[in-house]
Amino acid sequence: MDESKPYPVDHIGIAVASFTEALPVLELVTGGERSRPERIASQGVEVVFVGDGDGRLELIRPLDADSSLARYLERRGPGLHHIAYRVPDVKRALADLTARGLRAIDETPRPGAGGHRVAFLHPKSTGHVLIELVEH
Amino acid sequence: MDESKPYPVDHIGIAVASFTEALPVLELVTGGERSRPERIASQGVEVVFVGDGDGRLELIRPLDADSSLARYLERRGPGLHHIAYRVPDVKRALADLTARGLRAIDETPRPGAGGHRVAFLHPKSTGHVLIELVEH
Repeated sequence: MDESKPYPVDHIGIAVASFTEALPVLELVTGGERSRPERIASQGVEVVFVGDGDGRLELIRPLDADSSLARYLERRGPGLHHIAYRVPDVKRALADLTARGLRAIDETPRPGAGGHRVAFLHPKSTGHVLIELVEH
Repeated sequence: MDESKPYPVDHIGIAVASFTEALPVLELVTGGERSRPERIASQGVEVVFVGDGDGRLELIRPLDADSSLARYLERRGPGLHHIAYRVPDVKRALADLTARGLRAIDETPRPGAGGHRVAFLHPKSTGHVLIELVEH
């Protein structure tokens, strides 16, 4: 990674049991439009974005009780879930960061919301912050 | 609030037991400079910023075991803690958002990091996301 060019925040992920409780109040703060909800079947989740530009929020709800997000909600409850950074090349960023000691959850990039290529870093290696890398 | 002008993200707060574990790895991702650590005695915390611009990270560590942050860490462990939105007038934003049903933790603004005026909204009213309003 070119240290002079930090990765910008793409979005902040928020785990919710349903969109109903959090979406209207978070719209008040972000003031932004909400996206059409999108199902990511491979992860067993549905997501909706609220707000515009950097720092928009991604609300994520589980579609079934077996998804890892459903287990997360049981363990931790709803709330802040991850930070996504926008990278020019997710495969390269993943290789660079793992070479520097960070651990990948996804060894290779996979499709995320909006068809973007994404990969997650393990929170145990990042000071307990779940970090997503997103390539648009 | 003017709905056409959403509040931008000022920073993302991360609760840590110490700066040592999280700071070096989060610097790898944000690529940015770290600020000089600052003690906020009234809150019993010390903070350090890492990264530049919108979406920079604020690491917060407790200075004593009686601080509410120390109790938070005992209960929830380290990790994502709050989102701070930059507002032109924190008193006015607080009045506007509470009139729309959100609950304030701070009834009136108080001094935060960098001498900025800040106020927190109660996560029970925001879909379980702790939100800070910051006036620069």
